[in-house]
Amino acid sequence: MATRLDAAGSRRGPDRVIVEEPLEIQLDGQLLTVTMRTPGHDFELAVGFCHGEGLLGGAVVQQIRYCATGSAVDTNFNTVTVDTGIERPPLRARLTTTTAACGVCGSQTIDELTARLEPLAVPSALDVAAAAKAAAGARAGQALFEDTGAVHAAAAFDLTTGEVSLLREDIGRHNAVDKVVGRLRLDDGLPPTELGLFVSGRASFEMVQKAWAAGFPWLVAVGGVSSLAVATAKRANVGLAGFLRDGTCTVYAP
Amino acid sequence: MATRLDAAGSRRGPDRVIVEEPLEIQLDGQLLTVTMRTPGHDFELAVGFCHGEGLLGGAVVQQIRYCATGSAVDTNFNTVTVDTGIERPPLRARLTTTTAACGVCGSQTIDELTARLEPLAVPSALDVAAAAKAAAGARAGQALFEDTGAVHAAAAFDLTTGEVSLLREDIGRHNAVDKVVGRLRLDDGLPPTELGLFVSGRASFEMVQKAWAAGFPWLVAVGGVSSLAVATAKRANVGLAGFLRDGTCTVYAP
Repeated sequence: MATRLDAAGSRRGPDRVIVEEPLEIQLDGQLLTVTMRTPGHDFELAVGFCHGEGLLGGAVVQQIRYCATGSAVDTNFNTVTVDTGIERPPLRARLTTTTAACGVCGSQTIDELTARLEPLAVPSALDVAAAAKAAAGARAGQALFEDTGAVHAAAAFDLTTGEVSLLREDIGRHNAVDKVVGRLRLDDGLPPTELGLFVSGRASFEMVQKAWAAGFPWLVAVGGVSSLAVATAKRANVGLAGFLRDGTCTVYAP
Repeated sequence: MATRLDAAGSRRGPDRVIVEEPLEIQLDGQLLTVTMRTPGHDFELAVGFCHGEGLLGGAVVQQIRYCATGSAVDTNFNTVTVDTGIERPPLRARLTTTTAACGVCGSQTIDELTARLEPLAVPSALDVAAAAKAAAGARAGQALFEDTGAVHAAAAFDLTTGEVSLLREDIGRHNAVDKVVGRLRLDDGLPPTELGLFVSGRASFEMVQKAWAAGFPWLVAVGGVSSLAVATAKRANVGLAGFLRDGTCTVYAP
């Protein structure tokens, strides 16, 4: 129940809000991160996150499971473990994957990605009509947004036809992207050389990092882009467009 | 330079994007976190972040400085150190401040906050006219948003008059809130019992946590709210309103 307030007074009524719950992601038995996410497609989220962090490489995902502590009753749906069967050295907390040396800056942050990711092939020009169609398709598919007005979407779309082939929603836009990437990774669909990545919000450094790691030729955002997103996209040869609205967009890279 | 694309073709022109750079925050010489932020008000951001994590308590902030490694030439404006003179045990990476026990869930996440934060006094009813005035005032003051269309704002406003007393913008909405809280902390303005906290986006768990830690009676968001935000606000006695638009809003807590 919630109360709607306006100048005339207040009215009580039902109100649907988006679900937010912590998800603990483990890789081969080690804690990797805790993310606040909207439950659903958790296995994809976990795999996509691991992929984006460069922790999967060519490894085969052998099993993904909710953490069970001894009995079915204790099964916990807020912990997901990804198993690749690889013996790993202790995983550093994600925080410290960014250098802790005094002197972290934007270009160093990009350098770290460059150390593990090759630049992609220079992408073909963006077909803005296809991108606009994808935006409309994604919007039409956003069931949770319709319901709650408070959720981000990410989608994979055909760069030629604009058809949306995969759509995920989450309270965190990075989670929505991880869910899309994770699904593609599980379907052996990476790199998605014919697909663009659509995001309903803005494009920051993190979004470009995830698009690059997945191998999307284009990242297209409804919102604006950041300076570090542009610099990273140029280095990666990831096409980057923002302000996709009313059949137009602004291209910042390559 | 960027390219505007539409059905008729393309046009090159200048384009301003929001700056995003990593900031490393250290407390008493130990690395605490790295956050992607819009440079500016970095000292406030660092202090506000430390406060929200419950690491300052009643400590006196003796010094805040950009990290300098030996000479002025090496001064690095992407590392900020907050000094309180306290000898601290090793700070755990922020990740692991959330329990790593198998079984993290929303209510446990709230329990952890409850362990270090007292519920606030039950807030007076929200004056929606004052909140609407604050939203208009904040919007008018969003210089970076005008420029780039891709930035969040947080503001402290008078719950009676709607006057905005403090406004900060950042590419990260959590950073914008930290900057507001940090400024108040440095001015001995916590808890701000007569002020509300306005955010230009949505209200998730993290926003409520920060509002609670700072002692704001009300958190008012332009966007929607999450389930965990509502549950946390109810436990904290933080008033929580969302969808502040056209002189109306929806109240979810207390």
